[in-house]
Amino acid sequence: MIGIRDIAYFIPEKRVSNYDKKEKFDITDEFIKNKIGVETVAVKELNDSSSSLCVKAFEKLQAKTGVDISEIEALIVVTQNPDFTIPQTSAIVHGLLDAPTHCASFDISLGCSGFVYALSILQSFMTANRMRKGLLFTSDQYSDIVDADDKNTTLIFGDAAAVTLLTDEPAYRSLDFSFGTIGKSHRELLCSDKTLFMNGRAIYNFACKVIPDDIRALLERNKLNTGDIDAYLFHQGSKFIVDTMTKRLELDSSKVVFDIYDYGNTISSSIPILLEKQPPAASGQKILISGFGVGLSWANAILERV
Amino acid sequence: MIGIRDIAYFIPEKRVSNYDKKEKFDITDEFIKNKIGVETVAVKELNDSSSSLCVKAFEKLQAKTGVDISEIEALIVVTQNPDFTIPQTSAIVHGLLDAPTHCASFDISLGCSGFVYALSILQSFMTANRMRKGLLFTSDQYSDIVDADDKNTTLIFGDAAAVTLLTDEPAYRSLDFSFGTIGKSHRELLCSDKTLFMNGRAIYNFACKVIPDDIRALLERNKLNTGDIDAYLFHQGSKFIVDTMTKRLELDSSKVVFDIYDYGNTISSSIPILLEKQPPAASGQKILISGFGVGLSWANAILERV
Repeated sequence: MIGIRDIAYFIPEKRVSNYDKKEKFDITDEFIKNKIGVETVAVKELNDSSSSLCVKAFEKLQAKTGVDISEIEALIVVTQNPDFTIPQTSAIVHGLLDAPTHCASFDISLGCSGFVYALSILQSFMTANRMRKGLLFTSDQYSDIVDADDKNTTLIFGDAAAVTLLTDEPAYRSLDFSFGTIGKSHRELLCSDKTLFMNGRAIYNFACKVIPDDIRALLERNKLNTGDIDAYLFHQGSKFIVDTMTKRLELDSSKVVFDIYDYGNTISSSIPILLEKQPPAASGQKILISGFGVGLSWANAILERV
Repeated sequence: MIGIRDIAYFIPEKRVSNYDKKEKFDITDEFIKNKIGVETVAVKELNDSSSSLCVKAFEKLQAKTGVDISEIEALIVVTQNPDFTIPQTSAIVHGLLDAPTHCASFDISLGCSGFVYALSILQSFMTANRMRKGLLFTSDQYSDIVDADDKNTTLIFGDAAAVTLLTDEPAYRSLDFSFGTIGKSHRELLCSDKTLFMNGRAIYNFACKVIPDDIRALLERNKLNTGDIDAYLFHQGSKFIVDTMTKRLELDSSKVVFDIYDYGNTISSSIPILLEKQPPAASGQKILISGFGVGLSWANAILERV
């Protein structure tokens, strides 16, 4: 059985403070702390790219686990900010890490639902092809596409990359996944002419209506109650979104993690960052992960500590 | 078991003739017919995009099979020419086709190896998630990025999309796959500032040295000889590439398909187009499919007629 063995992430050191933008956007401390829940956003160096952030995340994984790149049989990158459209960023990362020639690699284009989707995709691809060690990178740097005058986006998004090591000796196995798409609403979160547009209200409604219903259905078909889950790691869209989801699902708020005050919404990396920061769970403990956003697209999953 | 049930494709009607470019590029009829093997390239209408080509391919599939979109549980698009970088093209196609909300969707960014990779990815994803019907789109339109003065690319690439219906009642099942990447060479085929660059010599060497060796190894580990394969569907890079691969593998040339005189190298769609055009195989007959290109990346697979 393939599952998550370990995770590492790279968040750039540079921060831009939302408190410095209070006058510009006519916002309060209360709005910053309790509505968006982002005090500073992480911003990459100008010469960093999707691939270089992946490499920096991998260096952290290597320091933490001693993982040997020569044993990696699959390497995928989830990004919507690729270095180029041609070639795929995974090939660039493959080259930079000196991965083996017989390592499979491909990119997945998804936004905030990307990690949960890719976990299922890579697990099942590795299982079907009898692979034992794989790397799942998530890497997005919205600082390249955010309009500094757009309150809806510039206060929210931070840059980061994460890398998740999947092996046949996992720390977490996945019990079940659910997926969905509302493609007709794809224009609510869109990047055109290198500038990001987000209809915050539409994304909020999507996150707070569709996702809780789907989580309830996923738990039900696995004969679980919300109380059977030990931690809820929702995509960190904003504090307001996470708080509303918590209320809609009537969750014990101590089980719901919110963590992005210091670095912002890091898109596909938000969930692996939370998961890496989780205190070690006891065997059998369950974590629900939920990614939703660009597409509009979502993926929910139940993980169990092995 | 999930596998290929049916395939349809859309090749735009408009053609540009390479015979009209003989003087400009100082090339002969012999070069056009026997070296590149492309007499005319297919070119999309200006307002067509990756997503609209997918929709046109789907209309053909629907006419051919009567497939009901409401039964589709997964929809993926392989493209390196997405409508936007954000959102994924699969979400746009999902909306245009009015696919169900509980249909999973994502994009895969790969070039000429994309179909073979995606076949394994979608089969294993559907199997793991207990899905019964899925659509695998391939859609690329290099006419948007080809430099009309670049002989290496403008004479070769054509626009197309294909859609492959995967179900649990397949016509072809896959026996085995192999994958590989030479990421250090990713600059040999690259699109920067919306213009494609290809080092034709490097791609030729890659295709004609690395791929035949990998095909031999794949056959060996499945205890098959080259003679046990009934048809070879190589990615249609050029006639010279396909002919050289045929020689290197010492194949009976009547088993090797070359088909792109009329429409060109359609990247990720080249193999599904060939597969759709194959005469109905007898049960147990085997087809080898081989995709290679951008990355540099490749995927080989052995299919068997059910």
